Amino acid sequence: MSEPARFPEALLRERCETLLTRAGASPADASAITRALLHASLVGVDSHGVRLIPHYTDMLRSGAFNPTPNRTLRQTAPAAAMLDADNGPGHPASYEAMTEAVRLATKTGIGAVGVFRSSHFGAAGAYALAAAEQGLIGIVTTNSDSAVCLFGGAVPFHGTNPIAMAAPVAGANPWVLDMATSSIPFNRVKLFRSLGKPLPPGVAVDTGGHPTQDPEKAAFLQPLGGEEYGFKGAALAGVVAILSAVLTGAAIDPEMAPTDAGTAQNVGHFFIAIDPEHFVGRAGYDAAMTRYLTRLRGSTPVDPNHPVMAPGDREWKEAADRTEHGIPVDPDTMRALGLSSH
Amino acid sequence: MSEPARFPEALLRERCETLLTRAGASPADASAITRALLHASLVGVDSHGVRLIPHYTDMLRSGAFNPTPNRTLRQTAPAAAMLDADNGPGHPASYEAMTEAVRLATKTGIGAVGVFRSSHFGAAGAYALAAAEQGLIGIVTTNSDSAVCLFGGAVPFHGTNPIAMAAPVAGANPWVLDMATSSIPFNRVKLFRSLGKPLPPGVAVDTGGHPTQDPEKAAFLQPLGGEEYGFKGAALAGVVAILSAVLTGAAIDPEMAPTDAGTAQNVGHFFIAIDPEHFVGRAGYDAAMTRYLTRLRGSTPVDPNHPVMAPGDREWKEAADRTEHGIPVDPDTMRALGLSSH
Repeated sequence: MSEPARFPEALLRERCETLLTRAGASPADASAITRALLHASLVGVDSHGVRLIPHYTDMLRSGAFNPTPNRTLRQTAPAAAMLDADNGPGHPASYEAMTEAVRLATKTGIGAVGVFRSSHFGAAGAYALAAAEQGLIGIVTTNSDSAVCLFGGAVPFHGTNPIAMAAPVAGANPWVLDMATSSIPFNRVKLFRSLGKPLPPGVAVDTGGHPTQDPEKAAFLQPLGGEEYGFKGAALAGVVAILSAVLTGAAIDPEMAPTDAGTAQNVGHFFIAIDPEHFVGRAGYDAAMTRYLTRLRGSTPVDPNHPVMAPGDREWKEAADRTEHGIPVDPDTMRALGLSSH
Repeated sequence: MSEPARFPEALLRERCETLLTRAGASPADASAITRALLHASLVGVDSHGVRLIPHYTDMLRSGAFNPTPNRTLRQTAPAAAMLDADNGPGHPASYEAMTEAVRLATKTGIGAVGVFRSSHFGAAGAYALAAAEQGLIGIVTTNSDSAVCLFGGAVPFHGTNPIAMAAPVAGANPWVLDMATSSIPFNRVKLFRSLGKPLPPGVAVDTGGHPTQDPEKAAFLQPLGGEEYGFKGAALAGVVAILSAVLTGAAIDPEMAPTDAGTAQNVGHFFIAIDPEHFVGRAGYDAAMTRYLTRLRGSTPVDPNHPVMAPGDREWKEAADRTEHGIPVDPDTMRALGLSSH
C-alpha cells in the first residue's frame, strides 16, 4: 500500500468548511466543526479527523444534526451553566460550553457547564485543549451510544465514553489526555479484521459477552482493564455517564439511538475548567508542572531508545510533522473532499 | 485458617479513638481518622481500615503526622479554597476540605478545595461519600509516593494515585467508585507471595521494569491497562498528580518521602463537589440516576447467577453484613487494639 497523499491544513480547512456550509451548517458552526476535526487530524487521531466530513454532512442533510440550532446557554449559579444544544452538531456547542466554563472559572476558581440535546462532538481533547490554550486546566466528558459491555455483562451498555484533560505548560504545548474508557475503539477491531490478525487479550467480546481475540467474532468492546480489572474501566465509563447525562438531562447511554440511525441522539457532555491562579497561583503551578514533566520525561525507560513520554507528547510531535509535511488523507476521504493527489 | 474474629463497629470506634488520642491526636482529629478507617472497614476495604491504627499511632508519635496541626482554610475565589494541613493526618483535613467544597458548590454549582502539606488519608471513597451524603456528587484525588512505573518506564514514578467519586441515589445508598490507577495495590503482590500463586499478567514488573507474574520478582506495579494499554492508567495517575500536587503546591510523587520514612510527606489532595440542583435540577437528577442504575443492574449478565453490579454495590452489601455480624479483625490488629476473641 502506498503512503496516503498529504494536504496542507489550510486547504483541508477550506474544503471542510465549504462542504459543511453546503450541507446546511452556518459559517460559524462549520468553522467550529472544522476546528475540532483539524485538531484530531493534526495530532494524528485520524478516526476523529476530516474523515468524518461525509458522515457529518449526511447527518446535517438528514436532520440527525439540526443544521440551524438555536443554542441556549443559561447560567444557573456563579460557577455553573447549562447549554441546550438544540440537537445541533456537538462541536460548536462544546466550544461554546468550554468558553463559558473558562469564563466562570477565571472568576470563581472552577466552573462547569453541562450540555444536553447535543450530538457527536468528535475528539474530546479538542475542547480540553481550548481551556489549556487560555491557561486553565480543562476536563471534558461525553457519553455515547452503547458499545462496551459492563464488567460481567453480556450486552453493550456504556458508550466508549471518553475522558479528556488538558493542562497548560508554561512556554510549551499543553499536557493532553484524551482516552476512551474502553481499551480500544471499535474501529480498531475493524482494522484487525482487515489485517487478519488476532486482537490483544481483554479488549473485545463475542455476541454472548465472552472474551475473544478473533476479530471476526468480536461483537463489542470490553471496558479498560479487561477480564481481570474491567470493573475499573466500567466504573470510569459510569463517571462519564453520570456527569455527561444523568447530571444534564441527556439520554443515558443505553437509551441513546445508534449513531447511524439518522435521528437526534440527545448526547450529553460535561465541561470543567480550573484556574490555577485561584489555587497554588500561576507561578507555583507553572514551576511545578514544568518540574513534574521534566522528571517524568527523564524517568529511566525500559528501552534506552524509547524515552518515557507524557500524555500528548506523541501527538504534538505528529502535529509538528503534519504542519510541515501536510495531513495524510485516505482515498475515500480525498474523494469526499474533492481532493486530488495530482 | 479459621475465620477472623468479628467485632461491633461501636467497640472498634471506641478503641481507635482511644489509641489515637493516646498517641497525641486531638479528640476531633481522632474521631475523623476513625470515621475514615471505619468506612473502609465496614465496606470491606480492610487494607485501608482499622488495620492502619498501629501505623497511624506510630506516625503520630514519631511526628511524621503532626499530632497538633494548625490547619488553615483559605477561600481563594467564590468556588475555590486551599487548605494547609500543617503536616497533620490527612483524614480530618480531608473531611474539612470536602465539607468546604460542598458548602461552596451548594451556592456556586461546583466547588473545589486543594489540600497541601497533608499526609496519608486512608480510603479516598470516604470523602467522596461525605459529599454524596449531603446530596452532592463528590470527586476526590490524592497523590502518593512512587510505586507505579510509567508506560515504558523502568522505575517507580507515580503513586497508586486513586480516583474516587460518589453520586447520591434517591432513597438508596450512593453510587461509589474508589479505584487506584494501578491495576492492584502492592499489598496484593504480598498476598500472592504468601499464597505462592502467580500474579495475573500486566499488573507488576521486576526491578528492571520488565513485566513479571512471579510475585517474588515483582518489584513495583504497572499502571491500569497493563502492557498494551498502560498508557491510559499512567495518564490517569497523571490527572491525579496534576490536580492533587501540581495545582496545590504539594510534593509531586517522585519527590515525596516514602510512607515508612517517618517524615512529613507533603501529600496533596483535591476535592470537587457538584450540586445537581444547579445543573439538571434535583428531580431530574434523581429520576435519571435511578433509571440509569435500574438499567445497569438489569443488563444481561454473562453468568445468570451473577447479576451485573454498579460500583459500590458489593461494598454496600458487605457493609450491611458487617453491621449485622461485626467487622472481622486480623490477629495482629486485634492485639494492637487490645481486643480479645473471648
